[in-house]
Amino acid sequence: MVATDTHEVSTTGQGDAHDLTSAVASAVASSNLTAGVATVFVVGSTAGITTLEFEPGVVHDLDGALQKIAPRDADYRHHLRWGDDNGSSHVRAALVGPSVVIPFSAKRLLLGEWQQIVLVELDTRPRRRRIVIQLVGE
Amino acid sequence: MVATDTHEVSTTGQGDAHDLTSAVASAVASSNLTAGVATVFVVGSTAGITTLEFEPGVVHDLDGALQKIAPRDADYRHHLRWGDDNGSSHVRAALVGPSVVIPFSAKRLLLGEWQQIVLVELDTRPRRRRIVIQLVGE
Amino acid sequence: MVATDTHEVSTTGQGDAHDLTSAVASAVASSNLTAGVATVFVVGSTAGITTLEFEPGVVHDLDGALQKIAPRDADYRHHLRWGDDNGSSHVRAALVGPSVVIPFSAKRLLLGEWQQIVLVELDTRPRRRRIVIQLVGE
Repeated sequence: MVATDTHEVSTTGQGDAHDLTSAVASAVASSNLTAGVATVFVVGSTAGITTLEFEPGVVHDLDGALQKIAPRDADYRHHLRWGDDNGSSHVRAALVGPSVVIPFSAKRLLLGEWQQIVLVELDTRPRRRRIVIQLVGE
Repeated sequence: MVATDTHEVSTTGQGDAHDLTSAVASAVASSNLTAGVATVFVVGSTAGITTLEFEPGVVHDLDGALQKIAPRDADYRHHLRWGDDNGSSHVRAALVGPSVVIPFSAKRLLLGEWQQIVLVELDTRPRRRRIVIQLVGE
Repeated sequence: MVATDTHEVSTTGQGDAHDLTSAVASAVASSNLTAGVATVFVVGSTAGITTLEFEPGVVHDLDGALQKIAPRDADYRHHLRWGDDNGSSHVRAALVGPSVVIPFSAKRLLLGEWQQIVLVELDTRPRRRRIVIQLVGE
């Protein structure tokens, strides 16, 4: 019914991204579930999870769009609170979202050929990230 | 297997946000489920659900970024349809999304310490909001 | 416990959108589940799924905001990789996200009256799209 897995990655900071697809596929393979949904969730409020074609160009282009939406060097109200410099990270993370949900069937993730599950690091400094892979199904 | 809870909040309109974390934690605590996923879903097309560090600075900064993406006072095709003034609300809501999915285990939400589940009001007027908390697990 | 349905639509390219609500409602109706969550997931990395009030004005306004975030005719690093022209599609899709999760109860989707489940085509050319509707519940 439910299988919980966790996965950790070390990032280099804003602009970095990590392909989680094989970790999620492994969690499905090693569970006793054959069909259901995989929720991939990052613990923390300055990173996001989405799907994309994982190649350096797309990762760079996404960072460029996020830089327009929430420029790293702009003034943020959040900076006044703790003396942090990562207001852009919080805004970006709220927009990208902390989780993505992927269906699986016959023990296979139903992703497209060029569609990977990706952690997008949005914080301004390197971080150790914990990702929860929660499988619910049968 | 499945437990359904609903939660209501009154908002003051665009720029307002409400922390739903304790309502979701209570739903998990009072269910007979110990592990699974909590889907937190807002009914309606002019509000969003995400996770963020719930402090006024981040809430303000997020509103500022959304104001750049979809300015409140711009012209929207939607305004021509009903005479509404909330085209910005619809665009923002489609981008933020109506739901977030959070894993739980041993009856605890697997959130970060500074990561709250938040309703972001995007409509231009105060609204009464109904949030569905749907737990699926074991 | 789990019911898998797939649905296909043909799109005209960037700016097009399709209402999937009746397809998802039909999947719930024809399953043997009464309560749970419906994960609506698009296979591929240049389309997105969200909820919105499905009328041409909102669809147009959303496309306008995405055009500001990731202009169709800008330069993208992704274009250098394959000679593609759809860098804007990849960026937009990563932001909108590939899936939305909707709760259902008593065999009814718990959507608002003006809230539809929508496929947003983001690619620069017409596409045949496959959507997975994964129901998990009881």
